[in-house]
Amino acid sequence: MTSQAVTWLVLDRPQGDLEAQLCRGIRERVQAGTLTAGERLPSTRALALSLRISRSTVVQAYDRLRAEGLIETVPGSGTRISTARPRPLAGVTRTRAPASREALPSTPLQTPSAAAPRALPFQPGVPDLKSFPAAAWARCVAGRIKSLRIHDLGYGPVAGLPELRAAILAHASVARGVMAQVNQVAVFPSAAAALDTLARVTLAPRANTAWIEDPGWPRARGLLHRAGARVVPVPCDADGIDLARASGAAPRLIYVTPSHQCPTGVTMSLPRRLALLEAARRHGAFIIEDDYDSEFRYDTQPIAALQGIDTGQRVAYVGTFSKTLAPGVRVAYAILPPELVAACHADMALRQGEVPIHIQAGLADFLNDGHFRGHIRRMRGVYAERMDNLLRALTRHCGDFLDMADGAGGLKLAVRFRDHGVDDRSVVQALAQRGYGARTFSEFCLRAPVPGLVFGIAQGTPARSEALAVALAAIVRDAP
Amino acid sequence: MTSQAVTWLVLDRPQGDLEAQLCRGIRERVQAGTLTAGERLPSTRALALSLRISRSTVVQAYDRLRAEGLIETVPGSGTRISTARPRPLAGVTRTRAPASREALPSTPLQTPSAAAPRALPFQPGVPDLKSFPAAAWARCVAGRIKSLRIHDLGYGPVAGLPELRAAILAHASVARGVMAQVNQVAVFPSAAAALDTLARVTLAPRANTAWIEDPGWPRARGLLHRAGARVVPVPCDADGIDLARASGAAPRLIYVTPSHQCPTGVTMSLPRRLALLEAARRHGAFIIEDDYDSEFRYDTQPIAALQGIDTGQRVAYVGTFSKTLAPGVRVAYAILPPELVAACHADMALRQGEVPIHIQAGLADFLNDGHFRGHIRRMRGVYAERMDNLLRALTRHCGDFLDMADGAGGLKLAVRFRDHGVDDRSVVQALAQRGYGARTFSEFCLRAPVPGLVFGIAQGTPARSEALAVALAAIVRDAP
Repeated sequence: MTSQAVTWLVLDRPQGDLEAQLCRGIRERVQAGTLTAGERLPSTRALALSLRISRSTVVQAYDRLRAEGLIETVPGSGTRISTARPRPLAGVTRTRAPASREALPSTPLQTPSAAAPRALPFQPGVPDLKSFPAAAWARCVAGRIKSLRIHDLGYGPVAGLPELRAAILAHASVARGVMAQVNQVAVFPSAAAALDTLARVTLAPRANTAWIEDPGWPRARGLLHRAGARVVPVPCDADGIDLARASGAAPRLIYVTPSHQCPTGVTMSLPRRLALLEAARRHGAFIIEDDYDSEFRYDTQPIAALQGIDTGQRVAYVGTFSKTLAPGVRVAYAILPPELVAACHADMALRQGEVPIHIQAGLADFLNDGHFRGHIRRMRGVYAERMDNLLRALTRHCGDFLDMADGAGGLKLAVRFRDHGVDDRSVVQALAQRGYGARTFSEFCLRAPVPGLVFGIAQGTPARSEALAVALAAIVRDAP
Repeated sequence: MTSQAVTWLVLDRPQGDLEAQLCRGIRERVQAGTLTAGERLPSTRALALSLRISRSTVVQAYDRLRAEGLIETVPGSGTRISTARPRPLAGVTRTRAPASREALPSTPLQTPSAAAPRALPFQPGVPDLKSFPAAAWARCVAGRIKSLRIHDLGYGPVAGLPELRAAILAHASVARGVMAQVNQVAVFPSAAAALDTLARVTLAPRANTAWIEDPGWPRARGLLHRAGARVVPVPCDADGIDLARASGAAPRLIYVTPSHQCPTGVTMSLPRRLALLEAARRHGAFIIEDDYDSEFRYDTQPIAALQGIDTGQRVAYVGTFSKTLAPGVRVAYAILPPELVAACHADMALRQGEVPIHIQAGLADFLNDGHFRGHIRRMRGVYAERMDNLLRALTRHCGDFLDMADGAGGLKLAVRFRDHGVDDRSVVQALAQRGYGARTFSEFCLRAPVPGLVFGIAQGTPARSEALAVALAAIVRDAP
């Protein structure tokens, strides 16, 4: 590479700051592994000539990289990529958090693995990121970043950009039947953050009772527990949460997933919905309705949100863009009961955990310009097919030992082993060895664990679904 | 406007989706008030001709805006901006959170005003946003948004993008003398969020004691209180926190601002620093070092961070980009004691309040490319002058009734009234009536309130500083 033309580095002159571009280009290639330790770099003269930039620019860039320890110059033998990895770059190996909302710790202070592997196919919790509308998203956000105004950079409104809150309400009204005013909408970085604030506001500082679904979302249990709640699991059946089987003290907060229950996929029946609203009224409790991916309903029209039929203003509705767009966007929202608005704003103001203003503004444009609506419509068709692919494949190959949910909505499918003696953890491990993700059903169970599996359907192409079902059948058949 | 060429709307053809651009253009003009209720819009034919786009595009855009209630068509009289404000846009009036970190509630569940006015000059807590390096920032973030990769969109690492964490550590090591490994760095949306996590991890679930500086940052008190702490104020003097005057139970957490104390600006002396580290060791306590704008030191070289001289690994160092760049960026960080890393990651994982990945990646580039270093260097000169402007003006006009801090660093200046009978709240009100911001000194006091004022120096040009000092002198002179 010493005297030939340098083809691996293209500078964008109109962008300016060629020294920084040069540094970045070399850093990126080292991080990506295309320039490796000990590899020789062109001389400053050769590189300057090849890139048609001034030699002093190259000298300064090399100086900077040398100061960072990324390159080293050995007299007589030129400049090379350092053999010792430099300190400022020592952490660049991508270590990722567990890949799904289910993958995270179910009890406070349990340490999540910092080095969890990238999500395997069928790992629940992540949408099909390959279908992310990247071009429109980039246009919306980049447009707002370029047009930033001074006052956009100050401390923003605690509950979120009013423009985004209005766009969210418009979506939730039309798509989910939510009834509210814009001032009830609050923007959070995640559904979990919304839950955290709601739990703190309603439960603290006294230790109040919270009811949650069993089986149910482990993170919700963790968040309520951390907020100081006495968490009481309430059994769920084919109609959803069964309050007749709730015991213990009157609740202050009830956490439910009525549209399709996490993880069973069950839709809460209307009588149960009315009973729930009545119980909340009677106990003076609030309900958190986690409606996390209810935009995806395959059998009929989406079931309207519980919030929309609540005349007592007891329901805090929580939605997220993590499932409809991507978790990396880091935007979710709550539609708060009027009584909780001031307290939630105070909680949010204290922590200052707002979503950066340009992401909020870009998302507002993304919603207002119709990109979101189009994406949901498109993905509903894609996911309906994938749910169907997985259901068919599992029925064909595993129908004799599995009971399956109906797959009428959402991005995951729960299946249970008919034989309650199966150790679902070892099945998940065996699947992982073959390259497939899944969660155990039992980790969603708060009291008696039931063995089963929870799959994400988002990447379930026909071939993959078939291969997964064949692998699962083989694992179960070969079990000792 | 009906038959003339339309000049108020320029479409960007290469960007595509002209219908969306048209809708957005009209929406923005309504929000900005340049198109007002009842104002007539061009006919679809005239607008299509003028913009040289197809008429059906205009028809569809008008249809969409009509569905939103933004425009209305009256047979025979054309299309107009609706006189009734449409619901989805009802919340677009910008209501802003209190403008500074000091402006926010000092006790949990105190409601912040949702309609606080935009920050007045000299309101403390906000840097000079006019000097924000907007072009470089936009380039860095927009570049990363365009180059997003699929796996960037999943659930990110709880403690932040490794690349950003490495860049932050490089900055904090060089600029502040911090000593740590990359895995100790954790990215948060704000310093308050870092405090919140640290307080929850160290104080909960038992009610532990926390020591804080008096006078001190009200939000820190609020966050520690909310985490369940028994908060004990410890007096500060000209050397910083005086642990000899601390009383009550042994602390589990000690919150300090050693580089320049909030709000007095005092730098903690070396003997006090050593005493503090020793006390933390003895009590098994952790120290939160809030180093919020210590990059700005005017008299000498910056004082190195307490964290760097702590051999016992008891210090959690907290820094923020809210003061060095802008609050709207919403990025801060903590450098955690090794013992707290796992627990903090678990707390962060539970809430999922990460900064969106593209902001993190853009900021990493901004740091690595040297833009941040350059901005700090430039602003240090600007702020040194502004601090000096304000000090001179106040000395000239108010020197007979004020005691002033030395203004050796930071973005705020505290002054105290020699006459302890002055009601600083009424002085702040009188200043606000004349268009100047300030906070009372007394609201930073946890026990005996001392009357005074806390100014932000970031916008303190010579003329403005002079005018403020003249106004303040007049207010005090005219007081009954």
